[in-house]
Amino acid sequence: MPEDMYRRVDAVKLEQLIKNAYLKLGLAEDKATFMGECLVNADLCGVHSHGSRWASTYARSVRSGGINPKAEPTVLQDRGATAIVSGDRGVGHIAVAFAMELAIKKAKEHGNATVSVRHNGHCGAMRYYTQMAADAGCIGFAATTGGTMIAPWGGLDRRVGLNPISWAAPTGRGFSYNLDMAPSVVAGSKVQMAQARGEKMPMDWALDSEGVPTDDPELAFKEGTLSPIGGPKGVGIGIAADILCAVLSGGRYSDEQQERGGGQVVQTIDIEHFQPLDEFKARMDRMVDYLRSSRAKPGVSAIAIPGELEYQRTQDYRTNGIPLDQPTRDALKKEAEEAGIPYDIEI
Amino acid sequence: MPEDMYRRVDAVKLEQLIKNAYLKLGLAEDKATFMGECLVNADLCGVHSHGSRWASTYARSVRSGGINPKAEPTVLQDRGATAIVSGDRGVGHIAVAFAMELAIKKAKEHGNATVSVRHNGHCGAMRYYTQMAADAGCIGFAATTGGTMIAPWGGLDRRVGLNPISWAAPTGRGFSYNLDMAPSVVAGSKVQMAQARGEKMPMDWALDSEGVPTDDPELAFKEGTLSPIGGPKGVGIGIAADILCAVLSGGRYSDEQQERGGGQVVQTIDIEHFQPLDEFKARMDRMVDYLRSSRAKPGVSAIAIPGELEYQRTQDYRTNGIPLDQPTRDALKKEAEEAGIPYDIEI
Repeated sequence: MPEDMYRRVDAVKLEQLIKNAYLKLGLAEDKATFMGECLVNADLCGVHSHGSRWASTYARSVRSGGINPKAEPTVLQDRGATAIVSGDRGVGHIAVAFAMELAIKKAKEHGNATVSVRHNGHCGAMRYYTQMAADAGCIGFAATTGGTMIAPWGGLDRRVGLNPISWAAPTGRGFSYNLDMAPSVVAGSKVQMAQARGEKMPMDWALDSEGVPTDDPELAFKEGTLSPIGGPKGVGIGIAADILCAVLSGGRYSDEQQERGGGQVVQTIDIEHFQPLDEFKARMDRMVDYLRSSRAKPGVSAIAIPGELEYQRTQDYRTNGIPLDQPTRDALKKEAEEAGIPYDIEI
Repeated sequence: MPEDMYRRVDAVKLEQLIKNAYLKLGLAEDKATFMGECLVNADLCGVHSHGSRWASTYARSVRSGGINPKAEPTVLQDRGATAIVSGDRGVGHIAVAFAMELAIKKAKEHGNATVSVRHNGHCGAMRYYTQMAADAGCIGFAATTGGTMIAPWGGLDRRVGLNPISWAAPTGRGFSYNLDMAPSVVAGSKVQMAQARGEKMPMDWALDSEGVPTDDPELAFKEGTLSPIGGPKGVGIGIAADILCAVLSGGRYSDEQQERGGGQVVQTIDIEHFQPLDEFKARMDRMVDYLRSSRAKPGVSAIAIPGELEYQRTQDYRTNGIPLDQPTRDALKKEAEEAGIPYDIEI
């Protein structure tokens, strides 16, 4: 790996760069600002697979007409503690954040809520949306359809999405519990990053078209499948997300569109409907303390719960810069040049 | 393995045997009938780890005062689309079925519902409760606290529950999609069954007290931990279930009780709040067809979705009898003798 593979970039400047790029693409001010904040949030968490590396991909989609820059998320149907939102084929993140805001509002009224999203594309890391819920005093759940790259259990061909699920809940310690996981051993983006860097993968990430393990990202993407966690369990989680995001939203498996199209689901539980929020947070803190009271494995300095490392990285990267790899920096530089905006993000 | 390790028993007679045993223990007629139906349902699905083998364990708990045979599930709090139910320290299954009935009723009114259960013990296979939801035209979710036997990621000691989660949704094909999975490579009951049969385990099921893989069920149960699926992902799912079942219900992590006590959560989404049920089922059927259109691996006769094999087994076992292993039959025979009721279940 070349020495300058990673360089630190300033978080605020990176947000500004992405915002400016989206403004040039025709997004409204508030939506462009949100996209800068949302993509950089993933980088701040260390989840670069879902961060600013996607900015130029989305920009290309806008230019080719695949993404509508003027899209407005719309409530198609609003019934009790449920709703269906259309993403209007815009940048996916905007409609999912809109749906989560609605789900939080509904949970405050009814105690819990389920909002599904259709006509919506890739929406980045699900942790962003469940964190919105946790910050609002809710337990959040979110899932999305991803690229179809897992084989059904006992099968060889791609039929199940790389559909991530996320749960989040607040603690009294600054960070929230936040699990965000694909049902595969690794997220598809990590395979793409290995491909972009010209690296081989560990043998347990993917299978070729005949179900044989492979370390070649090209082969996995061309005709292979990604390995599910826990065998049939990972496949089953992927199908659950397909049901919640695509079947329930009406985004997929209609008469017209068989396996194409996709969507998301967001769910909220208002904690105050069960117990005072402070009491809940105190319980969460006792749970965290209990988890931490385990002996650590040799070489492990401290036991962290899901969401804690991402919180620590955010503190670090806000102050010291975000380490971005060369393919991401190159793509951002190219995007800035094309848009005629300054690229001055490196520290 | 001795030749008569497995013998077929009649499902209806087995239900009757369990019902009679529970009547002798002091349960009311309707609750004893339910327990026979609920435990045998797991055996009919082939999930013997959660079936009638538990009947004598629960009976012992009733005799020792650990389970209250006269318990009545009670709604402690009812707010909007949420509720908290107390199991009154009875047989766990009764309160969770009660909570799911309430969640289904609330989903029909509000669109979705979340009901948590506390003061409740072991409640068997979660698939039973999510199937209730699917049969009522809902997408069901359920989770429970299990024995604390998973280490936090990077840790060596037991701190996270073997907490199963289940999702179910109806299709138009008789069976429902029904995923029921522990966040560990195998459920704790499977380790217990290997122990009861004197068998060794595969090396990827469990770790000893120093985090080294072991094939010895005794060692795993005495001081070891069970391996999570997908490393930190399985740990994260276990923690999510602890939050939903124990922290949210108020069943654990209070000032008084740190890691003891437990509970459950059940969630429902009424499908008709999103689309007509028939339309949803047609979409599910198209999804099932799409999954089945994959090439099968060599040696796999047909691709099945989660819940399908359990449905097929139920048809088979209802007609031809349930294959029960010797430790389970011996325990049931002993229980029948002690209760003074006939043991005439073998075909």
